[in-house]
Amino acid sequence: MPSDTRDRLIRSTSRLLRRQGYAATGLNQVVAEADAPKGSMYFHFPGGKEELAAAALAQFQGRATNRMRRYLAEHGSVRDAVVAMFDAYVEHLERTRYTEGCPVATVALDAAANHDLLAEATGRALQEWVDVFATALEAEGRAPDEAHGLATLVIAAVEGTVVMAKGERSTEPIAAARDVLARVLAPA
Amino acid sequence: MPSDTRDRLIRSTSRLLRRQGYAATGLNQVVAEADAPKGSMYFHFPGGKEELAAAALAQFQGRATNRMRRYLAEHGSVRDAVVAMFDAYVEHLERTRYTEGCPVATVALDAAANHDLLAEATGRALQEWVDVFATALEAEGRAPDEAHGLATLVIAAVEGTVVMAKGERSTEPIAAARDVLARVLAPA
Repeated sequence: MPSDTRDRLIRSTSRLLRRQGYAATGLNQVVAEADAPKGSMYFHFPGGKEELAAAALAQFQGRATNRMRRYLAEHGSVRDAVVAMFDAYVEHLERTRYTEGCPVATVALDAAANHDLLAEATGRALQEWVDVFATALEAEGRAPDEAHGLATLVIAAVEGTVVMAKGERSTEPIAAARDVLARVLAPA
Repeated sequence: MPSDTRDRLIRSTSRLLRRQGYAATGLNQVVAEADAPKGSMYFHFPGGKEELAAAALAQFQGRATNRMRRYLAEHGSVRDAVVAMFDAYVEHLERTRYTEGCPVATVALDAAANHDLLAEATGRALQEWVDVFATALEAEGRAPDEAHGLATLVIAAVEGTVVMAKGERSTEPIAAARDVLARVLAPA
């Protein structure tokens, strides 16, 4: 069994979760899009669809966290990092014609209430992303409570403006929220 | 054909869209949950699932807009109205054990990219909600651009914190974003 089959299954799942959510994603579709033999799916993910989705969310969480840390490292302030991150979302959604998005959001909305394993995966991702920005805001001198609140608003604005951009087929909401956040996050 | 059949079909669709999105919602399930004869669906919605979903989104839009206007009318400032609205979301998500949410968000994420009629419906809802708050903020003396930006952030925070609350099975993100918005929206 080639070692990249597992990764192809995870990527295929992640793509389908972003585009259509958990409830609509079937294992046959995952296997077909991954160009993988069906047996490989049960070999790598004996827990089936739920285990596969949790693995896809964990991989997405790690990549998104790394991207966020890179934005923070490359910019002189949280404000500038957030502006750069929102600009990247604008570019990404336009380039993919509003088909892409965040698998954590779709799974949180359509499956977390009824699947403990998926609620753990979505909760872990969202809390880690808030923590990344809260830590950076504390390093800028904000009190822990204020840093946590602002970081929560940043992640909520990411998830919320992706909903708006896809729902309006326009990146204007991302740009509008970006400009307000730039003022709110101005270093004290 | 009883006159309330159409309404039962719309309510059933709205509930299913909120809980599982558009892609996973089948017409048989809509008809079964509405306790309606299958023929009634095609009588009222000859355009099938897409037309039914657009009608459900339009009804949800109207109800949500009315609720937002009521919050604004009942409170002395946009800030206080937003705080009351976020408190209502906290109560609603806890009472429904994180199963409920916003059908506009699920459809925006899983269907708007590929269905023009649904993108129109989600876009119309989101833009109307932004306009409601932008108008109220202008009435408080904010410049149009600033009012529009702040209103966009409010709606993004609503949609984004619902994702977070469901994904974390906790209303803490809603409360945290509410407290930051209360500061950001303080009348100048």
